[in-house]
Amino acid sequence: MTKTLVFGHKNPDTDTICSAISYAELKKAQGADIEAVRLGELNSETAFVLDYFQVTAPRLVQTVANEVSEVALVDHNEHQQSADDIKDVTVVSVVDHHRIANFETADPLYYRAEPVGCTTTILLKMFRENEVEVSKTIAGLMLSAIISDTLLFQSPTCTKEDKLAAEKLALIADVDIQTYGMEMLKAGADVSKKTVAELLLDAKEFNMNDHKVEIAQINVVDVNDVLSRRAEVEALMTSIIAEKELDLYLFVITNILTNDSVGIAIGDKTDVVEQAYGIKFINNQAPLQGVVSRKKQVVPILTESFDK
Amino acid sequence: MTKTLVFGHKNPDTDTICSAISYAELKKAQGADIEAVRLGELNSETAFVLDYFQVTAPRLVQTVANEVSEVALVDHNEHQQSADDIKDVTVVSVVDHHRIANFETADPLYYRAEPVGCTTTILLKMFRENEVEVSKTIAGLMLSAIISDTLLFQSPTCTKEDKLAAEKLALIADVDIQTYGMEMLKAGADVSKKTVAELLLDAKEFNMNDHKVEIAQINVVDVNDVLSRRAEVEALMTSIIAEKELDLYLFVITNILTNDSVGIAIGDKTDVVEQAYGIKFINNQAPLQGVVSRKKQVVPILTESFDK
Repeated sequence: MTKTLVFGHKNPDTDTICSAISYAELKKAQGADIEAVRLGELNSETAFVLDYFQVTAPRLVQTVANEVSEVALVDHNEHQQSADDIKDVTVVSVVDHHRIANFETADPLYYRAEPVGCTTTILLKMFRENEVEVSKTIAGLMLSAIISDTLLFQSPTCTKEDKLAAEKLALIADVDIQTYGMEMLKAGADVSKKTVAELLLDAKEFNMNDHKVEIAQINVVDVNDVLSRRAEVEALMTSIIAEKELDLYLFVITNILTNDSVGIAIGDKTDVVEQAYGIKFINNQAPLQGVVSRKKQVVPILTESFDK
Repeated sequence: MTKTLVFGHKNPDTDTICSAISYAELKKAQGADIEAVRLGELNSETAFVLDYFQVTAPRLVQTVANEVSEVALVDHNEHQQSADDIKDVTVVSVVDHHRIANFETADPLYYRAEPVGCTTTILLKMFRENEVEVSKTIAGLMLSAIISDTLLFQSPTCTKEDKLAAEKLALIADVDIQTYGMEMLKAGADVSKKTVAELLLDAKEFNMNDHKVEIAQINVVDVNDVLSRRAEVEALMTSIIAEKELDLYLFVITNILTNDSVGIAIGDKTDVVEQAYGIKFINNQAPLQGVVSRKKQVVPILTESFDK
């Protein structure tokens, strides 16, 4: 049997890690030779989740073609967010909840995307459709992914299906959603021990009308915990812009208690962000009122603005 | 409620037409305002199917943005195979069984692709997952699509799932698969009344490593029925190459009784086809032994050959 690796995006978050582990469990139950791996360091929220449910972190890899010829992707599809050598392997399956872009195959494949808040909401359906039981541990991981991606159902990306899936999973995992959820989000939002690089860990790169755009996001309980270190943050953003030849770097600092954000933008194309939101950056900084979702409230709006 | 149009690819075949009608039925049962339309003339096989099950053909449209802002695609995703103005509307759903290429969205969407022989095999799952009953007429259309795309289960694209789906659908439709299937395929393979343009009706355009490639296919019971009109066929192919600025036009003439094909190739890049199959075109013609599936035995092989 051909071995397959399954992984989520670079700069992994809780959904990416938990989806890779859950997808591997589903496929193993169906007889597949598959291993979940990760493309980067765990963030503190995901570390909390794996520790809580006592699950070992997926193995860290840099490249995949040296190990396998076939891979499965979860929680992403765009090649610049995937393994560096993604073009040297065959993608046989994708389970995702993002837009589709920079993705192309030579052969037909299994592709399952739905416009829901979290990848594990789709995976739960796949467990049921294939009549595979969800274990208590896997239910805990899948629930954590939904809480993380929907900010405890507060994000505009959250759908009825995510909420229903979370309720089913909480029963199996035997946890109280609100209590566990706030504990988990706060573990991720504690920035006091984070290095500057860790503040920018959840960054994704996008190609928008031939411009290279990087968008990072962090969840906090007080935006000043990050803004107080702005000089260091901006220095790192500037060096990443030079290194990756970006046209724009937008850093979204989201308050999970008030559901608002502050944006820091650097690069030649900050005016596109200003036009998109009708804002003005002062010293690279501007409020992004009501913005909590990169996927729903940042990427499509900037994509459209770059297309103008 | 927003009205949605659903359609398959240009130069529609039986799967594209029957999938559009079936998808619309599924969504209507769930309360959607949706209409199945088509992007071109019916071929004789599809005309036979619609006549047999007494279903009106979907309305013919050239563009879609003048009517709706949201569309659903079945049986295709590549923009050059879709409506001319596909980039002016939002694709909210895709159900397909082809490779993914030249497809990009700004927002998350519903995308369901599986590497099976026919789109309606996937649609049957969706009816069941959503607990919507398949009517006798819709079952007949869905069965016809599977017979058409798998050449009565003889194509290498045919999977166990297609066969199982066909058996379930035949029971609902109350037809004998073999008897009805051969009658249907022969209705499509009768080229005696076809104009030269109709011989080349089932043509799809592909972008392969920045080359424009058109691949047409026709099913026949005797390849000489087409080869006897080669001069006219080649003249039309040559004029299409000039009009569309193609680098290659490959016409695959498939014998549905022997499951072999003959290829006619014109354009600057016919050598890529020769290298791909280890053949030599003599007077633009060469045998393609065992080749019956454009999707599985032509597109990936040429894509790879163009990438070299």
